[in-house]
Amino acid sequence: MILPYDDTYFMKKALQEAEYAFERGEIPVGAVIVIQDRVIARGHNLTEQLNDVTAHAEMQAITAASNFLGGKYLKGCTLYVTLEPCQMCAGALYWSQIDKIVFAASDTKRGYGAMGTQLHPKTTITGGVLENEAADLLRRFFDKRRN
Amino acid sequence: MILPYDDTYFMKKALQEAEYAFERGEIPVGAVIVIQDRVIARGHNLTEQLNDVTAHAEMQAITAASNFLGGKYLKGCTLYVTLEPCQMCAGALYWSQIDKIVFAASDTKRGYGAMGTQLHPKTTITGGVLENEAADLLRRFFDKRRN
Repeated sequence: MILPYDDTYFMKKALQEAEYAFERGEIPVGAVIVIQDRVIARGHNLTEQLNDVTAHAEMQAITAASNFLGGKYLKGCTLYVTLEPCQMCAGALYWSQIDKIVFAASDTKRGYGAMGTQLHPKTTITGGVLENEAADLLRRFFDKRRN
Repeated sequence: MILPYDDTYFMKKALQEAEYAFERGEIPVGAVIVIQDRVIARGHNLTEQLNDVTAHAEMQAITAASNFLGGKYLKGCTLYVTLEPCQMCAGALYWSQIDKIVFAASDTKRGYGAMGTQLHPKTTITGGVLENEAADLLRRFFDKRRN
């Protein structure tokens, strides 16, 4: 059986959000939260526009998903995000007890892995889904900003 | 010279915020952000009311302070918070490059220290200011919730 909805499908939705961030002059990171193959929340980085370090894509998606579900725990949900979560976002995901996190590009400097942030024991995490596409978008952004 | 504004003075303001949280049935944690002896932001835990794990006192104070300053970096600022920050809040404070963090009660289970969260190298941190008052308020809250 061919499944129409797989990790690549949803990561493309997150990449679309990252492109919106790019167009707004924000570091291009996007995220969606999915439950039972349905996107219930979207977010993209807005730290510049909102002048707020807490306005990462994941944080906005977590708030939106909780709002949609009417509860603060994201049990049964998967977060797709185009860049490995930072300490803050991984810390928020810890509290949310989310089932699964899928990220695209790694962040070897400020990612939760390098920083040693702890995820909730109930949460599984995978990286590398559409990694090149996400990394290319980030590279284009920083190249453009330098020139 | 007697300084009217010291850490105890501002921690009392944070405790006042924690009491507002208590009255609303929220885990009683409060925070204020101060620049040049002036409180520019306040916040108290609203995770239950907002159904949102990201609604910690510190996160709201960070957003409010950035809004007040019109910039996302909290240079020159001090955060006073009644409980040791968690991974999420310490991660947000990392991005903010805040000068100083002062907390009251320690959180030996979920605090940034126990969880190994990294602060920004520019940030200094002190704990224990009005520790008993903050811990008592938390104890009263959990006693009340159990009964």
